[in-house]
Amino acid sequence: MYGADYYPEHWDRSFWKKHVELMKVYGIEWVRIGEFMWSVVERSDGEFDFSLLDEAIELLSENGIKIILGTPTATPPAWLVSKYPEILPVDWNGRVRGFGSRRHYSPNSKAYLEYALRIVEQYASRYGDVIDVWQIDNEFGCHGTTYSFGNEDLVAFREWLKEKYGTLENLNRHWGTVFWSQTYKSWDEIVFPINTPTFENPHQMLDIYRFMSDSSIRFLKSQVEVIRKYSSKPVTHNFMVDFMDLDYRKMARYVDFVSWDNYIATEEYDPLRQSANHSLMRSLKHQPFLVIEQQPARVNWRQVNENYESEYLAMWTKQAYLNGAMGVMPFRFDQIRFGAEQYHAGLLDYYGRPTKRLEAYSKAKSQTPGVITPKPEVAIFFDYENEWIHRINHLNRNFKYWDAIVDIYKAVKKLGYNAEFVFNEDEVEGYDVLIVPYASYISEEFLEKIKKFEGPVYLTAMSSIKDKYNWLTERMPWHLIDEFGIEVVDFGGIKKEKGYLFSQCVNSLFWKDELEVFSAKVIGSFENGTPLATVKNNRYYVASVLDENGWKLLLSENLKPRVLGKGYELVNVERNGRELTVVLNTLPIENNVYIDGSLHVLKPFELSFVG
Amino acid sequence: MYGADYYPEHWDRSFWKKHVELMKVYGIEWVRIGEFMWSVVERSDGEFDFSLLDEAIELLSENGIKIILGTPTATPPAWLVSKYPEILPVDWNGRVRGFGSRRHYSPNSKAYLEYALRIVEQYASRYGDVIDVWQIDNEFGCHGTTYSFGNEDLVAFREWLKEKYGTLENLNRHWGTVFWSQTYKSWDEIVFPINTPTFENPHQMLDIYRFMSDSSIRFLKSQVEVIRKYSSKPVTHNFMVDFMDLDYRKMARYVDFVSWDNYIATEEYDPLRQSANHSLMRSLKHQPFLVIEQQPARVNWRQVNENYESEYLAMWTKQAYLNGAMGVMPFRFDQIRFGAEQYHAGLLDYYGRPTKRLEAYSKAKSQTPGVITPKPEVAIFFDYENEWIHRINHLNRNFKYWDAIVDIYKAVKKLGYNAEFVFNEDEVEGYDVLIVPYASYISEEFLEKIKKFEGPVYLTAMSSIKDKYNWLTERMPWHLIDEFGIEVVDFGGIKKEKGYLFSQCVNSLFWKDELEVFSAKVIGSFENGTPLATVKNNRYYVASVLDENGWKLLLSENLKPRVLGKGYELVNVERNGRELTVVLNTLPIENNVYIDGSLHVLKPFELSFVG
Amino acid sequence: MYGADYYPEHWDRSFWKKHVELMKVYGIEWVRIGEFMWSVVERSDGEFDFSLLDEAIELLSENGIKIILGTPTATPPAWLVSKYPEILPVDWNGRVRGFGSRRHYSPNSKAYLEYALRIVEQYASRYGDVIDVWQIDNEFGCHGTTYSFGNEDLVAFREWLKEKYGTLENLNRHWGTVFWSQTYKSWDEIVFPINTPTFENPHQMLDIYRFMSDSSIRFLKSQVEVIRKYSSKPVTHNFMVDFMDLDYRKMARYVDFVSWDNYIATEEYDPLRQSANHSLMRSLKHQPFLVIEQQPARVNWRQVNENYESEYLAMWTKQAYLNGAMGVMPFRFDQIRFGAEQYHAGLLDYYGRPTKRLEAYSKAKSQTPGVITPKPEVAIFFDYENEWIHRINHLNRNFKYWDAIVDIYKAVKKLGYNAEFVFNEDEVEGYDVLIVPYASYISEEFLEKIKKFEGPVYLTAMSSIKDKYNWLTERMPWHLIDEFGIEVVDFGGIKKEKGYLFSQCVNSLFWKDELEVFSAKVIGSFENGTPLATVKNNRYYVASVLDENGWKLLLSENLKPRVLGKGYELVNVERNGRELTVVLNTLPIENNVYIDGSLHVLKPFELSFVG
Repeated sequence: MYGADYYPEHWDRSFWKKHVELMKVYGIEWVRIGEFMWSVVERSDGEFDFSLLDEAIELLSENGIKIILGTPTATPPAWLVSKYPEILPVDWNGRVRGFGSRRHYSPNSKAYLEYALRIVEQYASRYGDVIDVWQIDNEFGCHGTTYSFGNEDLVAFREWLKEKYGTLENLNRHWGTVFWSQTYKSWDEIVFPINTPTFENPHQMLDIYRFMSDSSIRFLKSQVEVIRKYSSKPVTHNFMVDFMDLDYRKMARYVDFVSWDNYIATEEYDPLRQSANHSLMRSLKHQPFLVIEQQPARVNWRQVNENYESEYLAMWTKQAYLNGAMGVMPFRFDQIRFGAEQYHAGLLDYYGRPTKRLEAYSKAKSQTPGVITPKPEVAIFFDYENEWIHRINHLNRNFKYWDAIVDIYKAVKKLGYNAEFVFNEDEVEGYDVLIVPYASYISEEFLEKIKKFEGPVYLTAMSSIKDKYNWLTERMPWHLIDEFGIEVVDFGGIKKEKGYLFSQCVNSLFWKDELEVFSAKVIGSFENGTPLATVKNNRYYVASVLDENGWKLLLSENLKPRVLGKGYELVNVERNGRELTVVLNTLPIENNVYIDGSLHVLKPFELSFVG
Repeated sequence: MYGADYYPEHWDRSFWKKHVELMKVYGIEWVRIGEFMWSVVERSDGEFDFSLLDEAIELLSENGIKIILGTPTATPPAWLVSKYPEILPVDWNGRVRGFGSRRHYSPNSKAYLEYALRIVEQYASRYGDVIDVWQIDNEFGCHGTTYSFGNEDLVAFREWLKEKYGTLENLNRHWGTVFWSQTYKSWDEIVFPINTPTFENPHQMLDIYRFMSDSSIRFLKSQVEVIRKYSSKPVTHNFMVDFMDLDYRKMARYVDFVSWDNYIATEEYDPLRQSANHSLMRSLKHQPFLVIEQQPARVNWRQVNENYESEYLAMWTKQAYLNGAMGVMPFRFDQIRFGAEQYHAGLLDYYGRPTKRLEAYSKAKSQTPGVITPKPEVAIFFDYENEWIHRINHLNRNFKYWDAIVDIYKAVKKLGYNAEFVFNEDEVEGYDVLIVPYASYISEEFLEKIKKFEGPVYLTAMSSIKDKYNWLTERMPWHLIDEFGIEVVDFGGIKKEKGYLFSQCVNSLFWKDELEVFSAKVIGSFENGTPLATVKNNRYYVASVLDENGWKLLLSENLKPRVLGKGYELVNVERNGRELTVVLNTLPIENNVYIDGSLHVLKPFELSFVG
Repeated sequence: MYGADYYPEHWDRSFWKKHVELMKVYGIEWVRIGEFMWSVVERSDGEFDFSLLDEAIELLSENGIKIILGTPTATPPAWLVSKYPEILPVDWNGRVRGFGSRRHYSPNSKAYLEYALRIVEQYASRYGDVIDVWQIDNEFGCHGTTYSFGNEDLVAFREWLKEKYGTLENLNRHWGTVFWSQTYKSWDEIVFPINTPTFENPHQMLDIYRFMSDSSIRFLKSQVEVIRKYSSKPVTHNFMVDFMDLDYRKMARYVDFVSWDNYIATEEYDPLRQSANHSLMRSLKHQPFLVIEQQPARVNWRQVNENYESEYLAMWTKQAYLNGAMGVMPFRFDQIRFGAEQYHAGLLDYYGRPTKRLEAYSKAKSQTPGVITPKPEVAIFFDYENEWIHRINHLNRNFKYWDAIVDIYKAVKKLGYNAEFVFNEDEVEGYDVLIVPYASYISEEFLEKIKKFEGPVYLTAMSSIKDKYNWLTERMPWHLIDEFGIEVVDFGGIKKEKGYLFSQCVNSLFWKDELEVFSAKVIGSFENGTPLATVKNNRYYVASVLDENGWKLLLSENLKPRVLGKGYELVNVERNGRELTVVLNTLPIENNVYIDGSLHVLKPFELSFVG
């Protein structure tokens, strides 16, 4: 699925033909359109006009270009917001978020839902199987819009709680409301803890994170149901990079395949961080995925929007392919001169001429045939709810769950192996190594899988210390004390301490357990001599957070280092019954890499299949 | 009064017996309970149920454990807030502070006051002399809750102003409202300066700080009055560390003894800063005080909540004793698994087992018999209103009054002497040295005491430059020009300048006076040659802010250095008619300290009585 | 016009005589009074009492002191705000800005306008030609008060838009509302984009900046019209340093001469930055201007308010003179003991004694006879709307238009030449060199002037890339591609890159063009080899932002360096038909400067006329 995102509504129809011709010249076979067109197709309440979209779809189809059509619910029009101001979301400070950009709606607003599902039905009934793939809305949760704290949200939250807890007694018990005199006598007394003098109830907070995620998922689901009435085409949604506000694992159940928007969101660009996101997206359904938006070069939303030379787009395309993508679609084909994204690069330039980026992309496309299925040797346990638990009332507010996991992912990759993420319900058989990092809450089901796993298991500090209501457990790691031969008897936050592991020096960060070691061997220690890492049989426990280097050292006992060099990404695949290693040079210069002892000289950004 | 804070309501009654047994084993003789129980004992409006509290008190009493009972007014229940939302406080931004944590009330809310005094009366009438000590509310002002800017606060503020000024003409004159056209024609025109385009009226601001402090004091007083109707037991309130929003000196008048909560609130832990707080608390009534909450190890409210090894709790207990405490109660006995403080350490662990902390505390208790009365050689003038004056519209917004005073306190301690704080109404006879630092406003009464004081007096920049309405005085230092032989003729903020004092190099910070020297000798200069310090007879003037080292140097002329070493705290006491020096090693390692020329080898955290 | 700002209303009448005597002793010939007196002269609605102002004016006039009278509209009284709370402005967060400081009004409030124009009419009709100059209001826009987002502002904004665009179709097209579905069907749907989830519409934003500036200008204009009914005296307004919220060029049309308030607003004091402001003020009407407020020494509104030795005031006075000022008036004559500015220095001290500052000022006055007309060799294009364009949705949010222009100004000055600012409507003939820096939008009129200009022209990155609706142009630099022989084909933000210019090393900052060079010569390159600077005939293009050193190097081809040394400011003037160079030593020490090869030894802060 190679193509690009396209906005016919931004142009006078006279430009369209030129655009489509260039698409054909450069091999753009797919376009995504329509996801911000609400005010174009519904000019005022009930006044529908699909002529523009009809014509665009017709022109594209005539020219053999396949279409992903986005439902336009991310941008309720001015006439709608003006009529029903209660549609607007309310932020963490209790302030209404205004009209004038995008995503200005709460998915719990009844008025909004009515109009949103009506326009979706208009789209679905008109274009049913005419188009090829449906995209629901656009980037749920972007700009913090997972969260809304208005009246309708509160009503919906109370309903959600009633369904979950049944009785107030039950809720009071699980929320521990006896603490600080917070006991509720009526459902109507429950409010969002906005601008509270001090720390919120951590059990309530976890339910708020769950409820907010569920609100978007419910909205996606209701759109899918409308579309299903009219269309047999696959449905997807564009997920985001480094994004943890929504439980994507849960949301992925309701789409036919996962798509995501591959942008560089960190201050420093790190190719393996993008790879971790690719793998997370692949792991959501353990199936190929689509990069439905690919950063082309500079964007417009950073403090400093640096450009990237055109060959980067080629490399990013190959990297997606390497990680199991079934296609890459740069955002966007046409370059816009106006609007909030006027500085965002496109594949054409402001004058409509093809850029070097378009050429590079077009060439990369020809080097990425079919879809690769990467073979991951390592399973890393991941859970969105754990990310929320780490946000709430924790011991070290500097710790970031996803960042710490990306460090582990990078360690595995640099050793020459591939990693995939596994969730509570996933099977873990077939992987060589299982890592369960910083997993505050682990379901009983998965605890059993850990015990049964035959290969080495790595467990860390902060794992299995919480129940599903966000209470700390009586003993830690809960249900795994015997398995690992240690008990956590005390703990505290740390900034950075030196430690020793296999006689090497490592950094321990963020957290420090005090262990009682029953039946394990100590293989690492903090500088003050207390245990940093232990092993019992092939069960490893790390009493802190390690950085990438620490993890490389720790894992190397079971993942023998295969690669020497830097600036590479490597994946093992099966192809025609043969195991192959595929390697990508992520550097813009020639790169010498030793794989399994043999030298490979890689050209700038080269993708190479190795023996 | 050795014991701990305890929360029976957080446990099924089946746990209580185990808790009480452990208390007895480890010598917990006192507990504080009940201060967050409002929704437990008043389940809904007027529906009282004291069974839990009754049983807990009975069980504790039966086992010989003495009880401090806290009134539960810090946490108005959900049913009350839901019924009277106007109870909620309003912050500096004009935003309501929500339900969902604690201290969510304004002490000026009529509805709140009615319900709060009703529940206090329920407590008082039921437990009158059954319990041993009363604690009023919990940590007045914590989380910025001294301040509330709602409608009822405004009404109360106008009443407070009417009482203070009598007429609007009087208020307009003292507030200088002619500046920027702020003259009031009606009391109802007076508002809180919320979100003003620029700087507020500094005279109004000082009255706001006073009014807000008075609001909490008035509320404390009205609770005490209710309790007095039913009980002859002493009343206290738990004051806070490094806390300047409330005039604790004024508040202390209404309690029988001062208690405070000894937590480490600064980024870096500094034992002598905690000592300064102990001394401030002792100085409020110049009587022994209670550490009613003692940080046990890690807390939960810092960015990074570091743990402390168990022996720290022993040392902190000894340090309190050294500074004149009559008891130390770690917060908290039981370790909670839920609630906003689930990560806060206790004396038990999550599984209910005694920790090493509990053992260390128990042992320290046996090393701290009776109550010491420290003998301070030095008096440091202190005034809460001056702290507020420094907050308002000053010349150098980086200057912090209390931090600068702690530096002086530490200098005195490190020289081997003890300091106490004196307030406007206090006598200063009996001290060897009097320091009057950064005291913008000094009462006429105290100005006279300065003049009469026979020993050396140290006065600094920013002292006696304001009247009690926060006007600058015509000449500076007001009423002390002749006494010190200098006049401040100009001044300005500085960042950090080098200076010279007794031919040594010192840092001058924050503020720089330009002096006219009449009849004093210059003993220090700024780098540009203007006078930094002068002396006339034994009257010293410092034209800037010195750090700890500068003060050590300056004071050493009158306080001959007695000690060599580091990591010690030293106090002189009288015991059985003999002068003794007591020294505490605040380091976790063996420590060599020379006192009056003799070597003392102190074990880690050792408390030692020296000849 | 030498004098000072004076506040008789802050003093009991008994002090006035002393003040006036001191004025006469020290040569204070002008005073500005009255601009914060609203509540003094209108004590409640319609209750006027001009006795104080009458008496003050009479006393000053009797003593031969000339008067600038300020209209008091910057401080609506409490009684007025209390009666019409809708007068209060609303900030960017949608929050009302409260009473209690100053500038608490929206110029779009109908109630406010009615009362403001009434008090102005009272002033004007009473003092018509009795006083000598009128100042309108005080520092329009100070403290961010250019911006108000209340209901009345919104109504006025919609009217402003109707007038500008005529039809909604027109507005929708120019605002590009098809982007993100923002199309408006009714004028009433248009709102201010307050607290939007993400980036606002950049075309709407530019109109908001224009509207807000116009609102203040319209208010100024309506005051001028009232005054003109009663007075023939000149009207001015006090503009501010480094201030870009208002289009001062547009506002300057409605005053008879420009005044400004010369304060140091940057973290580090830089005399040439103040000079740039002087020149900008002179350039607004290309006429002499008045420094109506001059920082005397310390102020009160900085984080750290450092003092300045008295001779600085003398130097600042000479610097204003050097740049074409017709007078300098320190703020303020009398030193206040109360109010929000109690720490701001005056020319008297708190006790009413003359300070060394007053002496220094008085002496400097005698060294600055008449009014100099500086002869600028260099024209720098400047435009307030471009400053707003740079604020909105740009590529590098760290770039600051005015700061980057000050760097160019300083480069010109340090080479030994003088610069003036030119605006779209200004003529450029007569200047030797024309610099057009960072000028996103350039009017067609000015584009023609660039082409016709015979001398060297310097154009930079980000110039002529926008149309007047803030759309990017199709090609860049728009209409100047042939003239400069290059086209910008791509660009991106940068932090800091090394570059080469005339074989020297330079820093390139913020922005990096990718150029296609048609018919120009490359004279500078980025480190990666792409062109940094080009020249075609005498048309220079710089593909990035240079710092002061880079500009000195680049300009030196056409502005041969005349001066060696540091800490000087130099201006060429014509005097009695002779060209003279005037040089000011801005350092408090003796300074050796070589001008045109000859050594000049300048005394501290000396102003010297050179051959």
